Amino acid sequence: MARKLDWVGFDGDDTLWRSEDFFRVAEAGFEAIVGGYVELDARTRRHLLDVERRNLKTFGYGAKGMALSMIEAAVELTDARISARDIHRIVEIGRSVLRHPVEVLDGVREAVAAIAATHRVVLITKGDLFHQEAKIEQSGLADLFQRIEIVSEKDPRTYARVLRELDVAPARFAMIGNSLRSDVAPVVALGGWGVHVPYHVTWAHEAEHELVGDEAQVSSVQSAAQWPQAIAAIEAR
Amino acid sequence: MARKLDWVGFDGDDTLWRSEDFFRVAEAGFEAIVGGYVELDARTRRHLLDVERRNLKTFGYGAKGMALSMIEAAVELTDARISARDIHRIVEIGRSVLRHPVEVLDGVREAVAAIAATHRVVLITKGDLFHQEAKIEQSGLADLFQRIEIVSEKDPRTYARVLRELDVAPARFAMIGNSLRSDVAPVVALGGWGVHVPYHVTWAHEAEHELVGDEAQVSSVQSAAQWPQAIAAIEAR
Repeated sequence: MARKLDWVGFDGDDTLWRSEDFFRVAEAGFEAIVGGYVELDARTRRHLLDVERRNLKTFGYGAKGMALSMIEAAVELTDARISARDIHRIVEIGRSVLRHPVEVLDGVREAVAAIAATHRVVLITKGDLFHQEAKIEQSGLADLFQRIEIVSEKDPRTYARVLRELDVAPARFAMIGNSLRSDVAPVVALGGWGVHVPYHVTWAHEAEHELVGDEAQVSSVQSAAQWPQAIAAIEAR
Repeated sequence: MARKLDWVGFDGDDTLWRSEDFFRVAEAGFEAIVGGYVELDARTRRHLLDVERRNLKTFGYGAKGMALSMIEAAVELTDARISARDIHRIVEIGRSVLRHPVEVLDGVREAVAAIAATHRVVLITKGDLFHQEAKIEQSGLADLFQRIEIVSEKDPRTYARVLRELDVAPARFAMIGNSLRSDVAPVVALGGWGVHVPYHVTWAHEAEHELVGDEAQVSSVQSAAQWPQAIAAIEAR
């Protein structure tokens, strides 16, 4: 039987393994430190996100950029009253995110293996090259994928390049991931398929998105165990 | 005529474009800041390199890891007496390295184009994914290469993977670069060819190397203008 899809793509962070939880712990640590100097309110909490966003175009994504943005935000929020020891603790927060053990999410290995039995599979993950390589290696999942692409941004331009390298038309590609902004919207915009797997926490920046394209190309599932059915459902349409 | 080489690889930083100079300026800025707190001597100068090296396995290469290591070194060297404002200036130093304009070195475009007329050419560059992508784009050289590989480390294992992906035997591959440690030694260890182009400054970490393999596989030239001859000399052997 002719298939609709040639390749299925998988996101890494918060799709295959836990990630955002560690960033949340890091943010709580940051707030505990800055809270020793200033009363925390919505405005102070918002400030870190503002600093991270204005730095994205210079630092890109990942824990090192986060740590530098936290230091910058802490200096600004405390009017430079923060001590060198406390800034050093922020460096340690960044280091702890980079060193956290990789925890593959429930049912992921089986789900990817099941899809890999019928389709070619590619891991497309965004962020710091060095950290992503370490996480891929520690996850023990690398052997499942025909291709692994670490990219600095997940926008339609990046997906178009990756799909060109895979020699696949967007209509014959589905992407499975937790971020509507980074995994679903850009693929659907190109004419591909998106399978959304919400994670229990989403970074505010990733939560913002606009779906341009055919919403009928998007499905949503609750866990990895449902990924093979979601792909089978696309094939059956 | 049968050729010896199928692919020629080129390093990015300090081979195609200036890079280490900007890190040197950053180090001078770091020393000026720390020098406001402590007398600088050989030991204090050595301390930054020590911190950078012990952090390499967590931070990897690049300006963001450098900035975090500088902050850590500054806190340690000043016994935490450094002010938040001065630490913020170190963040700015990291940002300025990430934002420096890309200056392609003399004769590079012509030399790569000349070699690309007879061989397939690949750019193999190490460091921060986001920053390297930005530099490649700004260099205007991307169109010359059949393949571009951004890697987190340049060791024999990485080159073996890249050569496998290019489907080329090491003996049919030559790498042109400024670092004996990262560009020449690992390729020669695999049985390939190395063309060394010394840059006027080399990071202490990159200057250390051990050549394992056939030294007859290594040549050295002074500038990009000599790259096509160096490749022709390998072909003529």
